[in-house]
Amino acid sequence: MPDDLSPPEKKPGQLLARGVCRHLLGHDFVTVEELTPTSGLRVDVMALGPKSEVWVIECKSSRADFQSDHKWQGYLEWCDRFFWAVDEDFPTDLLPEDTGLIIADAYDAEILRMAPEDKLAPARRKVMVQKFARHAATRWHAARDPDFIPSWGL
Amino acid sequence: MPDDLSPPEKKPGQLLARGVCRHLLGHDFVTVEELTPTSGLRVDVMALGPKSEVWVIECKSSRADFQSDHKWQGYLEWCDRFFWAVDEDFPTDLLPEDTGLIIADAYDAEILRMAPEDKLAPARRKVMVQKFARHAATRWHAARDPDFIPSWGL
Repeated sequence: MPDDLSPPEKKPGQLLARGVCRHLLGHDFVTVEELTPTSGLRVDVMALGPKSEVWVIECKSSRADFQSDHKWQGYLEWCDRFFWAVDEDFPTDLLPEDTGLIIADAYDAEILRMAPEDKLAPARRKVMVQKFARHAATRWHAARDPDFIPSWGL
Repeated sequence: MPDDLSPPEKKPGQLLARGVCRHLLGHDFVTVEELTPTSGLRVDVMALGPKSEVWVIECKSSRADFQSDHKWQGYLEWCDRFFWAVDEDFPTDLLPEDTGLIIADAYDAEILRMAPEDKLAPARRKVMVQKFARHAATRWHAARDPDFIPSWGL
């Protein structure tokens, strides 16, 4: 794994997220990372499809990482489909069967089991697309204009 | 104007856009540049407010730049408010009175005249927020994962 493609500051879960985001673009889903749907919750990857489909993907780098997550069921109400993303060595028997499963590495991923659909109500979908839009635009603004440091922070 | 803050590849209109985007963030509007609302139209700046308000800002660096724009009236149906952004030397008498006016430079901007509001229908607003979200996320993905070059391009 060449160093220039995997900067040391990325954690294992973040590397999985990178592979997931790359793969989902091939399904015409755009993504952001670390979005906060509501106070106290932060999803690893949120993906937005061409028809405003909202998927959430939680990336787990190890058994311990999964077992210490006591919040994941709280994510279900913020998306149409919920997936786990894990690497090929992860003991996938641990994962609930009624969730989606993605096998990922830092470079790509593959959907092994499609998550069941539980469609958002229209009002909540509207809120989520708006949150997604503002999250993505804020990050993209900071990236394209790195010299801009507003007094209130970005 | 220090060189490191104004890379030579940016055109005068793009420098105005940078100042506009900086200023609008202070109004809690996030922005993208060069979004295509529909085939054949590309807006300089599209801004999204906290309540899904959609503003379009066209940046004009000179009289000739303004006079050669024969498409701007086509932008009106894609936003709640339409603004021109020009520098302080621009002959603002040229601009239609029933549009908004922003005076900008490469570093900041100021809204001199608020644009009249002509609210989007809910269905079109939904389309615009979705387009905005996907535009911002695609650009942000390319920026945060520059090593990723999908076979179909970004």
